[in-house]
Amino acid sequence: MYRTHTCGELRLSDAGKTVTLAGWVQRTRDLGGMTFVDLRDRYGITQLAFNPGSEAQQALVAQARTLGREYVVQTVGVVKERESKNKNMPTGEVEIVVQELSILNAAKLPPFSIEEETDGGDELRMKYRYLDLRRANVRSNFELRHRMAMEVRNYLSAQHFLEVETPVLIKSTPEGARDFVVPSRMNQGEFYALPQSPQTFKQLLMVAGFDRYFQIVKCFRDEDLRQDRQPEFTQIDCEMAFVEQEDILRIFEGMTKHLFKSIHGVEFDGAYPRMTFDEAMKSYGCDKPDLRFGMKFNELNDLVQGQGFKVFEEAELVVGINAEGCANWSRKQTDALIDFVKRPQIGATGIVFVKWTDEGLKSTVDKFFTPEQLAKWAERFGMKQGDLLCIMAGKAGKTRKQLNELRLHIGEQLGLRDPKVFKPLWVIDFPLLEQDEETGRWHAMHHPFTAPKPEDAHKLMSGTELGSVRANAYDLVINGTEIGGGSIRIHDRTMQEAMFRVLGFTDEDARYKFGFLMDAFEYGAPPHGGAAFGFDRLVSLFGHRTDIREFIAFPKNNAGRDTMIDAPSRLDPDQLKELGVASMV
Amino acid sequence: MYRTHTCGELRLSDAGKTVTLAGWVQRTRDLGGMTFVDLRDRYGITQLAFNPGSEAQQALVAQARTLGREYVVQTVGVVKERESKNKNMPTGEVEIVVQELSILNAAKLPPFSIEEETDGGDELRMKYRYLDLRRANVRSNFELRHRMAMEVRNYLSAQHFLEVETPVLIKSTPEGARDFVVPSRMNQGEFYALPQSPQTFKQLLMVAGFDRYFQIVKCFRDEDLRQDRQPEFTQIDCEMAFVEQEDILRIFEGMTKHLFKSIHGVEFDGAYPRMTFDEAMKSYGCDKPDLRFGMKFNELNDLVQGQGFKVFEEAELVVGINAEGCANWSRKQTDALIDFVKRPQIGATGIVFVKWTDEGLKSTVDKFFTPEQLAKWAERFGMKQGDLLCIMAGKAGKTRKQLNELRLHIGEQLGLRDPKVFKPLWVIDFPLLEQDEETGRWHAMHHPFTAPKPEDAHKLMSGTELGSVRANAYDLVINGTEIGGGSIRIHDRTMQEAMFRVLGFTDEDARYKFGFLMDAFEYGAPPHGGAAFGFDRLVSLFGHRTDIREFIAFPKNNAGRDTMIDAPSRLDPDQLKELGVASMV
Repeated sequence: MYRTHTCGELRLSDAGKTVTLAGWVQRTRDLGGMTFVDLRDRYGITQLAFNPGSEAQQALVAQARTLGREYVVQTVGVVKERESKNKNMPTGEVEIVVQELSILNAAKLPPFSIEEETDGGDELRMKYRYLDLRRANVRSNFELRHRMAMEVRNYLSAQHFLEVETPVLIKSTPEGARDFVVPSRMNQGEFYALPQSPQTFKQLLMVAGFDRYFQIVKCFRDEDLRQDRQPEFTQIDCEMAFVEQEDILRIFEGMTKHLFKSIHGVEFDGAYPRMTFDEAMKSYGCDKPDLRFGMKFNELNDLVQGQGFKVFEEAELVVGINAEGCANWSRKQTDALIDFVKRPQIGATGIVFVKWTDEGLKSTVDKFFTPEQLAKWAERFGMKQGDLLCIMAGKAGKTRKQLNELRLHIGEQLGLRDPKVFKPLWVIDFPLLEQDEETGRWHAMHHPFTAPKPEDAHKLMSGTELGSVRANAYDLVINGTEIGGGSIRIHDRTMQEAMFRVLGFTDEDARYKFGFLMDAFEYGAPPHGGAAFGFDRLVSLFGHRTDIREFIAFPKNNAGRDTMIDAPSRLDPDQLKELGVASMV
Repeated sequence: MYRTHTCGELRLSDAGKTVTLAGWVQRTRDLGGMTFVDLRDRYGITQLAFNPGSEAQQALVAQARTLGREYVVQTVGVVKERESKNKNMPTGEVEIVVQELSILNAAKLPPFSIEEETDGGDELRMKYRYLDLRRANVRSNFELRHRMAMEVRNYLSAQHFLEVETPVLIKSTPEGARDFVVPSRMNQGEFYALPQSPQTFKQLLMVAGFDRYFQIVKCFRDEDLRQDRQPEFTQIDCEMAFVEQEDILRIFEGMTKHLFKSIHGVEFDGAYPRMTFDEAMKSYGCDKPDLRFGMKFNELNDLVQGQGFKVFEEAELVVGINAEGCANWSRKQTDALIDFVKRPQIGATGIVFVKWTDEGLKSTVDKFFTPEQLAKWAERFGMKQGDLLCIMAGKAGKTRKQLNELRLHIGEQLGLRDPKVFKPLWVIDFPLLEQDEETGRWHAMHHPFTAPKPEDAHKLMSGTELGSVRANAYDLVINGTEIGGGSIRIHDRTMQEAMFRVLGFTDEDARYKFGFLMDAFEYGAPPHGGAAFGFDRLVSLFGHRTDIREFIAFPKNNAGRDTMIDAPSRLDPDQLKELGVASMV
């Protein structure tokens, strides 16, 4: 047996016991006479004391002095009350007076320090991820992830959801994102695809009468990457039969409330607020508003147009936000806001400011508007002395997007986006379809299996007024992040066919890709719907962070590479030959 | 709301309530006046009663008569005590007197009957798997799987195992089985591989100090398939640091005992029996003996040789089993045993029989052996009157394998392999290496990360007496099926390098494929070991079945095809081009 206790469990009440511990050398302190070693494992740190006395003990001290950082050692000793206690550590009242010490494995000097604050850069940390994961704050991300996965399963299982594994080697049906594919050796010339989601399988499980399904499952998208996107990611995937939207919202509101309570001890009063997609776009310029702070949009077209200010005259939309308490921002600060919105990623031309100082209302467009006019603007925003209005103008969609960025930016600057505050929101009534401006093609806003609202179904069936078709689709947004979403699905072959037609599938193509699903709809498909939640994102939200890679044990970098194992890599030509494929590079 | 209750929950105590139910029409019975419909969902079956009376009710009866099998309907009605109760159903004391009926979806006649005993053949059931899964006995396999997954996680979590997800897109390092590979679009000419197991990642998690890891995870092997093998399969994958073999056996014995108890209410007295690999081979001719019955091998070389019977004289091994109570088997029956072992899959030349009838011992080789000699054989087996000895001879390894097949075959015929009886066994002390007879190359019996027993390590390091190196490796065998296995791992770079050398890796190749692991061993790797359990097999064992496909929602056939979705399939040429690969077929 390598140990009788972990490095996190000994207390004063254990004093006098002879124990065996094993772990890593966190640090060694040589205080002339005494030598101390902090021994670390997943559970904590325990202090080892080496006290020169007898000859045997002097040999132990000498051995202790040879220990480098991160050496793996085993020790036998007696638990003793410490003279100078450390109240910051659970084991801080005791130390082990060492009687035996064995080096289980030596360690080279790690390329960065294994401390909460490390000197290791991103690249180095990823190459030596197994060392990075030793840091207590990194490891705790995975303890959180473990607990959340357990709680999700416990909740869903108690709600009669069955966990069913769906296949990973499936069929390529690229829609939106690209599929990763896998050549089949046994069926040469043919390929499997890795699932972008188990969508069709979970619907088939509903046709199969499984009633309630869930899975915490890896999904794959061959997309260009960024900080919050990985080629493989994990989804809490769920589906329910014989339900309406309301049933689904209730169950998954319950799931997240269960998580908030069990993980953070946070309880929410009443139901989560709901907002239609249209209102979210109008009031926040995006479909995932961050409700930790206000600064709701107000539109000003009726108040500002007809005064000869060209920027407003030519604008489809004039819209602003009120930054409370920011009237005293310096010219430098407001110029920085203008620079922010002028960056190519945002692409705005400028901002009109109105500040209410003790000298009254003052704007950057004073020559076009009277104080009385400004007062009306202020009224619309419920502006108070000390506030700063930021107004933008232009094409409606684009301007809303830009003002959304500005709102988030100011919220950030004002410290209104506290990661420890949680503001959930259901965004509902999404459009079923969106039109590509360039090609005129219709795309499914959610996915092609989403059902229209019953009252809009006739438009889908006839292919008319497609832009106004609303879906029973919903997203759960927390703190401005889309945590999950779903919809009521089509369960009727004729309607599914109409949907594919609207999306520009030929009948043949629809049948080739999704014939199995449409066939299944003819053998008694129940009404059904579901939702999927991005588990990596959900965990990072609960961990008060935004970089999902901190919550993935072995993430890929932005080029899709695992730099630790050096994957992907070239294959042996024989291996490719056996698969019946060739590399064209 | 589609329903107030499921079809499995109404009881006599609900009589008088107005309820809404939804489900599938299991069958319709038209008894002249009355019409009954059995409405089915995942939770049970409830009887709907249509009673012609008023005009409105007559319309309902007429509607009920149009319902086909598997129609999806919703109904509102009043719960009423039945006149003729069905004691075999939990809902059998009540029926619903229908007031409203809506058809939610019609259904074509299913291609096979949705009953426990179906008329659907294997191919048809797989093509319409969503209908096959509606059968109560098939669905119950997935309810079992769900419960087992939950229990496994609860047990391991309570033992401080952290569930960590390891990547699916990794590096190809083919060893033994072939890898499935995935071309990388972003790194053209390079490929990911799908993991055959998360072996190296779980070892890195031990280097990272995670201490105890588990995952219920999909693994992939591009092998030729058979009934109990799928290209993608699920493993309970575990690893522990600072452990010896004994610690690991204790934990996983605990895990399976927890499952036996929580799922089947079965408790085992004391520890599972253990058997060394050598003894298993000697006594049962295989490394996974089925201990539900005896028929242990006994070797007879010393008793049978030197008597001039050529078959025995020329044999390296003469070995037999005692089939108790089979002395009265007819000539036809014993001939069938000979035919069985002569099949090309087994390839034996014959069996020598000795039967002990009321006329005494009688053998098929009476002209070579005296009754006194036969009596000595009988004594070795503890043979009694009424028993039948079956003796085989030839090369030792081959003969043991053949006799193992015969033993299992006779055990089956005698009904000694009851799927409801569970006999677990640890097989321990596996050889580290095995030599390919043809090429002389050494292969890792378990995998190249398995550590030799400390007392045999010097042989590995020096590359001598390799055949006699024992490993700290173990398999859990239940009822003759290998349910899982594992080993203590190498955690020292020098030893890992020696292992790769023995396996014929060049230093360059070892570094290219596993350099990251060997590097990690230099930064403070703790002693560690682990195990992995085939979850599909474990569930099928608990479900008293042998075909793992019955416990996989959407399995592939023996050609690796999913016939329901028709995968794998051809890709769009543009898709391949974007990936930088070409199909050579």
